[in-house]
Amino acid sequence: LNTDKKAAPRAGPRPVITLLTDFGLEDSCAAALKGVILCLAPGVTIVDITHYVPSFNILSGAYLLKTACPYFPSGSIHVAVVDPGVGSERNPIIVQTPGAFFVGPDNGIFTYVVKTERISGIFRLENPAYRAREVSSTFHGRDIFAPVAAHLFNGVPPAEMGPELDAIVELDRAFPKIMDNKIHGAVIHVDSFGNLVTNVTSEHISTMRPVTVCTQVAHCSIIGLRQAYHQGVRDELITYIGSGGHLEIGCNGGSAAEKLNAGLGADVVVRRQ
Amino acid sequence: LNTDKKAAPRAGPRPVITLLTDFGLEDSCAAALKGVILCLAPGVTIVDITHYVPSFNILSGAYLLKTACPYFPSGSIHVAVVDPGVGSERNPIIVQTPGAFFVGPDNGIFTYVVKTERISGIFRLENPAYRAREVSSTFHGRDIFAPVAAHLFNGVPPAEMGPELDAIVELDRAFPKIMDNKIHGAVIHVDSFGNLVTNVTSEHISTMRPVTVCTQVAHCSIIGLRQAYHQGVRDELITYIGSGGHLEIGCNGGSAAEKLNAGLGADVVVRRQ
Amino acid sequence: LNTDKKAAPRAGPRPVITLLTDFGLEDSCAAALKGVILCLAPGVTIVDITHYVPSFNILSGAYLLKTACPYFPSGSIHVAVVDPGVGSERNPIIVQTPGAFFVGPDNGIFTYVVKTERISGIFRLENPAYRAREVSSTFHGRDIFAPVAAHLFNGVPPAEMGPELDAIVELDRAFPKIMDNKIHGAVIHVDSFGNLVTNVTSEHISTMRPVTVCTQVAHCSIIGLRQAYHQGVRDELITYIGSGGHLEIGCNGGSAAEKLNAGLGADVVVRRQ
Repeated sequence: LNTDKKAAPRAGPRPVITLLTDFGLEDSCAAALKGVILCLAPGVTIVDITHYVPSFNILSGAYLLKTACPYFPSGSIHVAVVDPGVGSERNPIIVQTPGAFFVGPDNGIFTYVVKTERISGIFRLENPAYRAREVSSTFHGRDIFAPVAAHLFNGVPPAEMGPELDAIVELDRAFPKIMDNKIHGAVIHVDSFGNLVTNVTSEHISTMRPVTVCTQVAHCSIIGLRQAYHQGVRDELITYIGSGGHLEIGCNGGSAAEKLNAGLGADVVVRRQ
Repeated sequence: LNTDKKAAPRAGPRPVITLLTDFGLEDSCAAALKGVILCLAPGVTIVDITHYVPSFNILSGAYLLKTACPYFPSGSIHVAVVDPGVGSERNPIIVQTPGAFFVGPDNGIFTYVVKTERISGIFRLENPAYRAREVSSTFHGRDIFAPVAAHLFNGVPPAEMGPELDAIVELDRAFPKIMDNKIHGAVIHVDSFGNLVTNVTSEHISTMRPVTVCTQVAHCSIIGLRQAYHQGVRDELITYIGSGGHLEIGCNGGSAAEKLNAGLGADVVVRRQ
Repeated sequence: LNTDKKAAPRAGPRPVITLLTDFGLEDSCAAALKGVILCLAPGVTIVDITHYVPSFNILSGAYLLKTACPYFPSGSIHVAVVDPGVGSERNPIIVQTPGAFFVGPDNGIFTYVVKTERISGIFRLENPAYRAREVSSTFHGRDIFAPVAAHLFNGVPPAEMGPELDAIVELDRAFPKIMDNKIHGAVIHVDSFGNLVTNVTSEHISTMRPVTVCTQVAHCSIIGLRQAYHQGVRDELITYIGSGGHLEIGCNGGSAAEKLNAGLGADVVVRRQ
């Protein structure tokens, strides 16, 4: 059964290119990125993180990028295109960290990356040699970011592609505020089960322990933290630390988003019980 | 045109890893599994069977797995994670058959596999060497099942990963009952065209032949069996044996699910006309 | 970081197989095609263009195929299965161009391909050696088109697979009519942002320049052409040439389809202002 598997290369991790966008899969946009990449970097493995970031929702995209990219091989290149300002003056950039490259618009999509990883460099994409000959005003994913990702995969140093920058745009709403011993956060993502993911992390929560916490959202108070989905009786609202390390509000066997009629941007307050 | 293709390995089929979950594609969950796999098994081809199994619907997942896995190369590893009991006491397992490995929770997701294939072994996943260092209570797909799949691909024998089991959980609702010369079945899947897939197979139907059959569903009776979608006038309800070998109820040019207002779990009775 | 990348093959583009269907991703259908292909052509890269062509909408599929296929490596094989007539008398075909192969039903899905590319040959798929042993009446994607794509990838000449044809079916609605100095077109696709894509291209529009154009759709008149999405105030309807070269009607920060209550097939008239 296993004889043929020996053909698989085994010498250490092999970088891949990942894609995160709000293009959806109803269109050919995501596929066009892949075609461009495969022309320039034949044989590279491309993985979709998701193409269903809610339209233009940079914060939700930033969160999803943060939850996925740590699991990919060292040296991987993460293309993130949630880009309501395409064609305007925002910079197209590369963010380099010790273990990865991030490619996309400088609009806050890399907010969590710069807070959780050491930054080796930030580069503004300017060099016309590393983009499509004609750049569409509405599709920088295909014409700028995809070619850049392929060239990074091929070993082109990011400094070749443009001048270094000092800082990137960060989203204010990505992190909660601590005031009066309360954590004032927000829902930054709703997953496909209807669980509400907040910008409150287990680190924030741990500052309140060992006291029982109380989470307030949409006029509801939820006491305590559970360990897993299957805890809580059917239809009960519960809070727990999700697999991404963030406080989530779920509903056993149902959708918390529907039950609470709450979604992206909803205020969340965590306090001692 | 073809010179470069010769680089493709041609010596027999090459196993792949497939994924079937109810995670959806709105999240980064499916991508995290792929990242974990690609770190451990560089270069492996990963194919999504689907990530849109209806939430927590193990039976629908079992059916979809059955319809896809026979088409993959021998030795392929099928990861199936529809897991409402994640974090509870259900066993994480491998089911080995002569042609494939199946990896997932022991909750009935492999019901059709054990009925339609010879079982070479069932193993409970216990060995901490083949899982993530820290196992989240809500994401065994990423922390247990994905690493196990990669290690199987790399040739680790399943017996290395835990003790052998005698039997697995099977879903009662996966098969129809024959009573009073009638087949008492159910809708186990609704496809994206709105066709209702039942647990009644062509083998069940053949016991009734050559007499014309009558299918009853949602207070409707449908006489006879057609050969293809395009048969039947527009909007007419028809029954036929679908590409998966199961009796399906369709509607020419429309959605049978909508027309009948019927879905997963609906009773279906087949009798001689 | 880059040492391992050198393992990636670099000698020119490497053809891939792409898939475009209306199967959706809720089912295992798209996966079955991939399994069949990977059994016959181990190691080939398969890219989904989309599986969400609106059900049975051949014209929308033809448009999406046109927008994606130019971006793939030379020699790639594009499988397009939007096939309301599966099991009926329409021909299964290959269309060969200097840079690609197209495989699917002869029902108009290749309308744009034959208008925009030079045709090297059209072949009717007849040879039973290059299809599944048993061909289902409802799933030619799996049983005919996927195996043919894999055999093309392996270098089998298309003439081996069946006799040459003179012409293919073309969709009348794929192109606008010019009457009385007006362009009479239609909406042929709605993208996931709710933008309405028309069959009017930048070439058609250029016949009207330099005069300002006026686009009429769903009892609304939109004056002028913008350069990018971000132009126009919030909620304003705008027209622009999309990344596929077609006139699109969009809505800054919203869905034009919803705002206009218009969709596939809606009439669009472009005239001088």
